[in-house]
Amino acid sequence: MTYQLTVLFLRPDDPAAFDAHYESTHAPLAARIPGLRSYSAFHPDPDPDGNPPAEYLVATLVFDDRRALSKGLRSPEGDAAARDIPRFASGGATMLTGEATTYV
Amino acid sequence: MTYQLTVLFLRPDDPAAFDAHYESTHAPLAARIPGLRSYSAFHPDPDPDGNPPAEYLVATLVFDDRRALSKGLRSPEGDAAARDIPRFASGGATMLTGEATTYV
Repeated sequence: MTYQLTVLFLRPDDPAAFDAHYESTHAPLAARIPGLRSYSAFHPDPDPDGNPPAEYLVATLVFDDRRALSKGLRSPEGDAAARDIPRFASGGATMLTGEATTYV
Repeated sequence: MTYQLTVLFLRPDDPAAFDAHYESTHAPLAARIPGLRSYSAFHPDPDPDGNPPAEYLVATLVFDDRRALSKGLRSPEGDAAARDIPRFASGGATMLTGEATTYV
């Protein structure tokens, strides 16, 4: 078991500005959250018809357990990362957390 | 870099039946997909107001690269897992794939 945070960033007004801010500012802030075991993000591919999905970026952050996630998000580094989201995520962001079962 | 598949299962008509099928049938099928590096899934926690999110289950499957993901999904095991989805995912499922950047 681990505790996972998946962030679904919806398509922003200015994708290039979003990407620049994410790489230069947001990812470095998020990567400093204490207790983070892994952190990755991807831009979803277009669907089979070539249409871009509503989700523009999917970020996956893994912690050991619920306590580690809570502690990490409430830390000064977690707070800085959370306060940064409105600065670039003009399409909005959905944060989903939960205890993950590992199958493989 | 890795190649990630995130599956967002929306809230089904019968959550208990969904969970039973997922654990007994779907997860074992998906876990056999060749080339799978890791596979986990979680039920998102309620939001701060106690409301359940639209996403009922979030599954994260990781492959080495795009070729490994394509090969895995097109294999007999990948096909069996895909054909199983309509049997339990009555709320629908969104499959998102893309090349993931690893930050931590």
